Amino acid sequence: MGKVYFVGAGPGDPDLLTLGAVRTLALADVVLHDALVSREVLALIPSHARIVNVGKRCGRKGIAQDEINTMLLQVASKGDVVVRLKSGDPLIFGRAGEELDFLQAAGVEIEIVPGVTAALAAAAKLQVSLTNRRCADQLLVISAHRKDGKTESDWHRLVTSRTTVVVYMPGDYGLVAEDLRRAGLSSSTPCAIISKVSSPEERSYRTTLGWLDRAPLLPAPCILIVGEIVATAASSESDFLDSSSPLFQSNFVQPAESSPEL
Amino acid sequence: MGKVYFVGAGPGDPDLLTLGAVRTLALADVVLHDALVSREVLALIPSHARIVNVGKRCGRKGIAQDEINTMLLQVASKGDVVVRLKSGDPLIFGRAGEELDFLQAAGVEIEIVPGVTAALAAAAKLQVSLTNRRCADQLLVISAHRKDGKTESDWHRLVTSRTTVVVYMPGDYGLVAEDLRRAGLSSSTPCAIISKVSSPEERSYRTTLGWLDRAPLLPAPCILIVGEIVATAASSESDFLDSSSPLFQSNFVQPAESSPEL
Repeated sequence: MGKVYFVGAGPGDPDLLTLGAVRTLALADVVLHDALVSREVLALIPSHARIVNVGKRCGRKGIAQDEINTMLLQVASKGDVVVRLKSGDPLIFGRAGEELDFLQAAGVEIEIVPGVTAALAAAAKLQVSLTNRRCADQLLVISAHRKDGKTESDWHRLVTSRTTVVVYMPGDYGLVAEDLRRAGLSSSTPCAIISKVSSPEERSYRTTLGWLDRAPLLPAPCILIVGEIVATAASSESDFLDSSSPLFQSNFVQPAESSPEL
Repeated sequence: MGKVYFVGAGPGDPDLLTLGAVRTLALADVVLHDALVSREVLALIPSHARIVNVGKRCGRKGIAQDEINTMLLQVASKGDVVVRLKSGDPLIFGRAGEELDFLQAAGVEIEIVPGVTAALAAAAKLQVSLTNRRCADQLLVISAHRKDGKTESDWHRLVTSRTTVVVYMPGDYGLVAEDLRRAGLSSSTPCAIISKVSSPEERSYRTTLGWLDRAPLLPAPCILIVGEIVATAASSESDFLDSSSPLFQSNFVQPAESSPEL
């Protein structure tokens, strides 16, 4: 019986892979990866390894979760070293739970190599601390992506002004903004959308909750960070600038490299 | 003017450093690090670099935040490459907010290299997904460590039975358990304490919220994971076993390597 490694590929930039992830990839006989894993990370897989894209977004309809489970077990049963490569960290919105349950029940040996989840990379890009003694006691990580027929999660009854909220896969910005305002957040709460964080196509956009529905739809994968901490975010050349956005007018910070003090 | 890199050192094992973190460390002229950064990670700092422990736990009373801010600005002003090395990810409970505000106001160029935060490493060790379509829609990250005189945070409003709660620096287990039960979680909610995750001294202990106050006090740094997902956690040889714990009796899973199916 082989072994299945769940490996976090990080958000895109191979520089965000851990040393352990790189070493584990080098051992792989078979790699099953999600659609969101970047080309640059896939390039690190040794040439002898078989690479299978089991992503849900690869043109065709996508592979059902049951099929992925079965495929993992089949390749592991051959004695192969199997890497299940997931973007970000494998244990945050990666549906690893179902695969782990299945493989654990089948007695397959498992090891998990953590990764940098998108929230951390996005905060690094914005140069804001997700927790902050002044204004953010806690971090709430949610997803706006809902399973068909699933009852709506009750996170919206929850949010306090001292919470940093990170929304993975925010989808319709207007709906998310409505949910967060119903949850008690003020329309002036700063927020930022970060698209394709850490990739060469990274873009970000800052606004407020009240203006979020007017934000441009940036390419997936996106994450949305909402909370007072965003007010101090640094800007960069990859920012999508919109002079009508209230954050542009009030809190826009020039990049350090062009600041006159230097 | 030099540049200050905020670098995530991960929870201990240098294998959990990112490639970017290793490369940034190699550039450093000066490294200011927290007390929790492991010896193995510090060993990667080049020999020509000056290393300063600015941690709060280093025997003496510790360095005030103002002094750290000033020191960062002083070394950056000399044109040096400064690495501010923080355990885990620099933007989760690392007090980076104050240092970032100070340096941004002074016009210092900043770059942030994310790291693997303890919650991800602990979940990897337990082999449980922090989010799960079946039982965990969201992740709430809090700290039980309170600033002197600060009013109690209202995080308890955020907890639902479909929330995975991760408590950094849980302190008194009994108090945390009381808070979580007041927040509406049932006494039977599974939980796990993980001490020194990813280090050679890693230990973990699983129990339920109702029994948490009887858990052994494991060495710091610890994190506590609370939620239904913990019920499926795999066990390992580093577990602290206590046959009186309800999870030991009901849900204890033998390590895969000793399971008879193999």
